[in-house]
Amino acid sequence: MLKLFHSPGACSMISHIALEEAGADFEPVRVMLAEGEHLKPEYLAINPHARVPALATERGTITENIAILNYIADRFKAAGSVPRDDAFEGAKCNELLGWFASTVHIAFAQVWRAARFTDDESVYPAIQQGGRQALEKHFEEIEDRCGEGWLVGDRFTAADSYALTFFRWGNRINLDMSRFPRWAALNQRLLKQQSVQRVIEHEQLGTELFRPAA
Amino acid sequence: MLKLFHSPGACSMISHIALEEAGADFEPVRVMLAEGEHLKPEYLAINPHARVPALATERGTITENIAILNYIADRFKAAGSVPRDDAFEGAKCNELLGWFASTVHIAFAQVWRAARFTDDESVYPAIQQGGRQALEKHFEEIEDRCGEGWLVGDRFTAADSYALTFFRWGNRINLDMSRFPRWAALNQRLLKQQSVQRVIEHEQLGTELFRPAA
Repeated sequence: MLKLFHSPGACSMISHIALEEAGADFEPVRVMLAEGEHLKPEYLAINPHARVPALATERGTITENIAILNYIADRFKAAGSVPRDDAFEGAKCNELLGWFASTVHIAFAQVWRAARFTDDESVYPAIQQGGRQALEKHFEEIEDRCGEGWLVGDRFTAADSYALTFFRWGNRINLDMSRFPRWAALNQRLLKQQSVQRVIEHEQLGTELFRPAA
Repeated sequence: MLKLFHSPGACSMISHIALEEAGADFEPVRVMLAEGEHLKPEYLAINPHARVPALATERGTITENIAILNYIADRFKAAGSVPRDDAFEGAKCNELLGWFASTVHIAFAQVWRAARFTDDESVYPAIQQGGRQALEKHFEEIEDRCGEGWLVGDRFTAADSYALTFFRWGNRINLDMSRFPRWAALNQRLLKQQSVQRVIEHEQLGTELFRPAA
């Protein structure tokens, strides 16, 4: 059986939602980042990079969200991952997942994990501030990409779940998320998906951070 | 016809090699990063993120290497991109592409493009030094992953081409690449591929930077 190693509210929730949406038979295994469980030898044996998510399969472990999501797409061909019936839509989904992972997510790493960029603690405030400025710009672009439906084509994909995760993180670092009404409306559509509801319940996230802070 | 927007020696050479390996009918279009061509309105209309590669298709433009490579895999099912006949090997390839793009590549961005992380120029040396330290660690891991064959399974994939690109960049920033003999041997196997030879010739890269500096 598949095992998903995840931490509540981390980007692993994107793969978690995709597995739920696919109706996959899998066991979620909690690795609490806040308690440093990802740095313990038991977890480093699973993912030496000390990150979540990791997906244990019959043939070995897969790390990196984009790899797991494309694997879920290949294996289950369900919504919530990457389209497989249309190569161009699949590419537009991977384009967003790639941009999210290698640009938007990096700006959050600047805010939360400045030590990844240098040992020199004196420059952490500059790196954190730079991350916040970058996020303001990236979040405007995400808002611009939100319409009446989903981010890619006319269907729910992992790109929507990734955006949902970022919105919550934006609230957590006290960005003013009220400037992104179309994005907030996308979140409300996502919260109607049973897969998203199950993950939010299982990861005990509550729903308030998926709306602009009051 | 497909059009690949690329800059010589940039990470766009990975998609360039994949298209050559697939025998695709495509037109390579040069966008010289060193001359700021990626910042001109003509190119921003193609990719507002001002990055290469970008692939123009009949249905629209695809950006982000990992998205382009998976699209080439879907469309041509050839070597040099992402395996499509084995979901697990495809995932292991995407895992490396994901790690390369969102971790190793970011360390190079620290060295070359510190301005992406903050406006505060006084901290650029710390960010650059942190990038170099991270690369030392990542490069040891790449060396550890190199064996007698290819990085993923028993076949040439885009993960090998990405590693080839990083090796050249390592030389360009004067890292001591002589510490990575297995990786250098992988490069020599790649240089025997006609697709790789064609791209090196077309991008006018020469072959000396794919070996440890003398």
